[in-house]
Amino acid sequence: MLYFENDYTEGACPEVLEHLIKTNNEKLAAYGFDKYSISAREKIKAACDCPDADIYFLTGGTQTNRVVIGSMLRPYEGVIAAVSGHINQHEAGAIENSGHKVLALPHKDGKINADTLRDYIKAFYADGTYPHMVFPGMVYISHPTEYGTLYTKDELKQLHEVCSFYNIPLYMDGARLGYGLMAEGTDVTMADVAKYCDVFYIGGTKVGALCGEAVVFTKKNTPAHFLTLTKMYGSMVAKSRINGVQFDRLFTDDLYFEISKKAILTAKKLREILKSKNYPFFIDSPTNQLFPILENSTIERITKDVKISIWEPYDENHTVVRFATSWATTDEDVDALAELL
Amino acid sequence: MLYFENDYTEGACPEVLEHLIKTNNEKLAAYGFDKYSISAREKIKAACDCPDADIYFLTGGTQTNRVVIGSMLRPYEGVIAAVSGHINQHEAGAIENSGHKVLALPHKDGKINADTLRDYIKAFYADGTYPHMVFPGMVYISHPTEYGTLYTKDELKQLHEVCSFYNIPLYMDGARLGYGLMAEGTDVTMADVAKYCDVFYIGGTKVGALCGEAVVFTKKNTPAHFLTLTKMYGSMVAKSRINGVQFDRLFTDDLYFEISKKAILTAKKLREILKSKNYPFFIDSPTNQLFPILENSTIERITKDVKISIWEPYDENHTVVRFATSWATTDEDVDALAELL
Amino acid sequence: MLYFENDYTEGACPEVLEHLIKTNNEKLAAYGFDKYSISAREKIKAACDCPDADIYFLTGGTQTNRVVIGSMLRPYEGVIAAVSGHINQHEAGAIENSGHKVLALPHKDGKINADTLRDYIKAFYADGTYPHMVFPGMVYISHPTEYGTLYTKDELKQLHEVCSFYNIPLYMDGARLGYGLMAEGTDVTMADVAKYCDVFYIGGTKVGALCGEAVVFTKKNTPAHFLTLTKMYGSMVAKSRINGVQFDRLFTDDLYFEISKKAILTAKKLREILKSKNYPFFIDSPTNQLFPILENSTIERITKDVKISIWEPYDENHTVVRFATSWATTDEDVDALAELL
Amino acid sequence: MLYFENDYTEGACPEVLEHLIKTNNEKLAAYGFDKYSISAREKIKAACDCPDADIYFLTGGTQTNRVVIGSMLRPYEGVIAAVSGHINQHEAGAIENSGHKVLALPHKDGKINADTLRDYIKAFYADGTYPHMVFPGMVYISHPTEYGTLYTKDELKQLHEVCSFYNIPLYMDGARLGYGLMAEGTDVTMADVAKYCDVFYIGGTKVGALCGEAVVFTKKNTPAHFLTLTKMYGSMVAKSRINGVQFDRLFTDDLYFEISKKAILTAKKLREILKSKNYPFFIDSPTNQLFPILENSTIERITKDVKISIWEPYDENHTVVRFATSWATTDEDVDALAELL
Repeated sequence: MLYFENDYTEGACPEVLEHLIKTNNEKLAAYGFDKYSISAREKIKAACDCPDADIYFLTGGTQTNRVVIGSMLRPYEGVIAAVSGHINQHEAGAIENSGHKVLALPHKDGKINADTLRDYIKAFYADGTYPHMVFPGMVYISHPTEYGTLYTKDELKQLHEVCSFYNIPLYMDGARLGYGLMAEGTDVTMADVAKYCDVFYIGGTKVGALCGEAVVFTKKNTPAHFLTLTKMYGSMVAKSRINGVQFDRLFTDDLYFEISKKAILTAKKLREILKSKNYPFFIDSPTNQLFPILENSTIERITKDVKISIWEPYDENHTVVRFATSWATTDEDVDALAELL
Repeated sequence: MLYFENDYTEGACPEVLEHLIKTNNEKLAAYGFDKYSISAREKIKAACDCPDADIYFLTGGTQTNRVVIGSMLRPYEGVIAAVSGHINQHEAGAIENSGHKVLALPHKDGKINADTLRDYIKAFYADGTYPHMVFPGMVYISHPTEYGTLYTKDELKQLHEVCSFYNIPLYMDGARLGYGLMAEGTDVTMADVAKYCDVFYIGGTKVGALCGEAVVFTKKNTPAHFLTLTKMYGSMVAKSRINGVQFDRLFTDDLYFEISKKAILTAKKLREILKSKNYPFFIDSPTNQLFPILENSTIERITKDVKISIWEPYDENHTVVRFATSWATTDEDVDALAELL
Repeated sequence: MLYFENDYTEGACPEVLEHLIKTNNEKLAAYGFDKYSISAREKIKAACDCPDADIYFLTGGTQTNRVVIGSMLRPYEGVIAAVSGHINQHEAGAIENSGHKVLALPHKDGKINADTLRDYIKAFYADGTYPHMVFPGMVYISHPTEYGTLYTKDELKQLHEVCSFYNIPLYMDGARLGYGLMAEGTDVTMADVAKYCDVFYIGGTKVGALCGEAVVFTKKNTPAHFLTLTKMYGSMVAKSRINGVQFDRLFTDDLYFEISKKAILTAKKLREILKSKNYPFFIDSPTNQLFPILENSTIERITKDVKISIWEPYDENHTVVRFATSWATTDEDVDALAELL
Repeated sequence: MLYFENDYTEGACPEVLEHLIKTNNEKLAAYGFDKYSISAREKIKAACDCPDADIYFLTGGTQTNRVVIGSMLRPYEGVIAAVSGHINQHEAGAIENSGHKVLALPHKDGKINADTLRDYIKAFYADGTYPHMVFPGMVYISHPTEYGTLYTKDELKQLHEVCSFYNIPLYMDGARLGYGLMAEGTDVTMADVAKYCDVFYIGGTKVGALCGEAVVFTKKNTPAHFLTLTKMYGSMVAKSRINGVQFDRLFTDDLYFEISKKAILTAKKLREILKSKNYPFFIDSPTNQLFPILENSTIERITKDVKISIWEPYDENHTVVRFATSWATTDEDVDALAELL
């Protein structure tokens, strides 16, 4: 069986696993004060070129979104997101459960446009009844988006400018950040992310770790008593080494970027194969997720040998599917898949 | 100055005020057990032709929506509403603050279509990832809608059927229910409302009372310990007589319906005047709210003498406005307004 | 039947009712912007000798506590209260439902002692694990307390000093504030309350109004967008006149204080009668609530003719009961009760 | 340096780590459907002698308490716990943040007594004002308790009977369950736990795992859509293998019990040493946590070479401390500690 279903099929990448093994018997402090968490923070600061960054490790993307958004919003505020945003679609109402509305904006290829955003906020304050409405209190974007697409540096800068003007934070969900930063043609670096976002998270679960995401507050803007808030939200682990050790390794010797690059290369290879076989694409995504449109009969045939994700119906006879590569995907996997297509 | 801004400009209608005065010195039980609350419940049951109805009095539409929706939904459920629905636009995130997502559907003239609803729920359960999504747990409609429009009996029946099929309650926000039931051409009676809705509320604030809304559970489906829930939500008043006395009078001698009818008649007169003067309408609403499109210069001119609501910009030179009548609006008021137009 | 069960048995006191009647047909603004709300705010500011006060009208004590506490606390904070405090015992978990813990302190006659408070907060910060605990974020007291007792001016000053030292607000629940301020022997004025408390509310429901409580923020410390928060909590009424008119009258010609004084005098008369008949008291309360200990047989006998509140069992044969007077209690009522005792 | 500070200083126990390594490259399903989670569930069912058990894996004790309690309570209910209970003291208000009050009962050595419990619930329903109060909706105990003490089988049975009578679930926090079950003199087996508790969790974090706790619903009483609820609460991990693999190994060949036994034996050895040296104990705890009372000067002296937990001040010159052993503690560690004492 071939596996292109998603990017969380394996455990940790070998180097990360090795670090877990090597440090397993060390006696370490708990609750984020272990030396590997401390070391990982320094390495991430360097990678972000953001010496002021304040960094916390959490476990899972929905958890991270819930804790960050819930901690930064005031009670009367909601979070602006694309209709297609993960928090609006696939987090089982986690944001609302923490008391906040997701203010859904139309999207283009999963992205929010700065003009659309500005118009929305302008219209909000222009409406005389706005005290009866949910205040825009934050902007949530993902990079890559749900559709595997990417913001350009200029688009990020523009979003940043709108947010700055209205004094609300820009938050980036980086569940697959590595794959975004290593995509071909992108002009966005991790330093740009740190520069333009007030807070973002670096996903580990889908990029080489067994678990773990690193939240980065970039503007000396960590919510007061954030550690206590993570406890209150049920998101603090006693053995914080589990995340600390993994991120310590991911951010040593550019491992995070190198394994991401690997996934980008296998995705590129697969993209070219699909194109050469004239499969149309639902969307043009430069990252590790590809969204070709397949005939239903093709899907039926190949899924005996390959696991893929069904994305959404396209028409009566066609369906959008997702092929995802990861650090674990090999050229041989792609070749074997090519045989089936 | 003339007042067509909204339908909550005055205090109570004279008969209701009289009842408050007459009963003021009586020694009455608290927390909903006063004899007028008990009597009002019986009268409302009769008006609904629903002997099984269970009735509670609350204070304010947003409060009522929050308490009813928050009490009926399970934590993993959200409430379906039209994008234009009051809970989705103008309740400051009250529903989300109670932990639930508003699942916004496209609307036609403020209304949800039964087919749209069915398709939405069908698609939800057809999506393999639905356990990661917010479950549809209730349908919220308003009658009249935000645009003053009305469901037909058949439309209500169809919504009821979809809800029954999926075993989720249909909830009607009746902030202006009286104006809806007394509109010309409607085939919906209060008994129909009770028959097709699992729960609804009869608005008092905008229909003759100083305050107060009556929640009606129609299918022996009151949430367990609902009284305690109203306390928990900060919605229980000690002197429950305040709502009980008012509803007792509103549902004596058809007062609720008669004062609603009065507002419908003045609205009708005004509608005809507007039509005769060739003002276009943004929407065709048969109730006490009219939404003509006025030239901005007209608005500037008339608002020296009449208070109206600015609804939304129409084009550069025109604006949608709202004229609302109420039980307190007189023919003379309409005549005076006609002079200005 | 005689009524000493509680102080919310009647409607509004005559002067308040008169003001409601007189203003009923005036066309007034909504949502707190009506002229009577505005006027009432000015009169309350004067009565508090606090020109900076910011005042909002809400409906019901639990609602008020929920909105004020929920709006002032940060998510990681709880509210300190006496174990016997209303928010800890009789508000159906309203505070917890808004996400905050009630941090219960031991009480003496319903009151919190400043030393106990200081020790508690000191011990909190001295405990190395405090980041895993709920932060003390506010102090809640009631005046009069649940037992009808009162703080002295010096006690309030001391509580204020502890709160100031730790930079947390002192909040007074004044559901029966009038009865407290008019009690014999108290040295606390409304200006003292405004001086020592960061926020308090003046109860109307139990002191002459049909409904309504006035929240007073005394230190330019109103939570941002408080109006929106009241909407979000389902606590905003469209016809804000209902509270505005009542408080406008209550704070004209010292009405609030005069009717409170009346209740104090009838309570005093009753207290003396009970003492002369050698009924022991569970607690010595100088306000409108008396807590004598009655033989169970006496209770059985008199409750055929008088309504009282059963407070708590005292021993096998005795029970603590509550007699409450109000602005509506007459000397004749007390005389008639005396006959029964 | 010696480590007796707590039982979460190391990573995973060697066998668990080995299993993580061995399975790391397998392609596994996500969100709890991986084969190791499935296998672990079967092994736990067998260990509990509870074929009907329904089992979920979560990450962290506070998270588990929050999710289980938040999912099982109705909005008007609170959870009964000992004043000393972890949820009442050291979870940063996680339960209240999910909307529920912790109803704190007095404790004896960290335990709730069945009679105290029954009296509390009886008194609740005997109080005529109970609809204004938080309903008792669940009983939370820990085993071992915060003080390392244990319930007897008979005590569990009695708690179970009270809970059954009032139809509320009994929930056991088993963060250190292994150490409880392996203690000398206990008559409680895991099958007893499953029999008398409606739900409990088996702590992994403190008993051999890097992370992970197993929630066991024992009476076909899993809350509807519990998987969705874990997502909503931000508690679902994509790579569920992380918990599945660890529990699969912990419940193979009685590993969970054997490593627990090891900690019990080193604790026993240390207890005897402390006794022989005449150190008094604050509490007599038969599990892996010992609470001797040390002179402050002794503490100052030994903490240069050993890490311990400061529990609470005893008197001016003495302090209660905690020595904790774990699966990783060796006889040599205890011998070395003995040298210092």
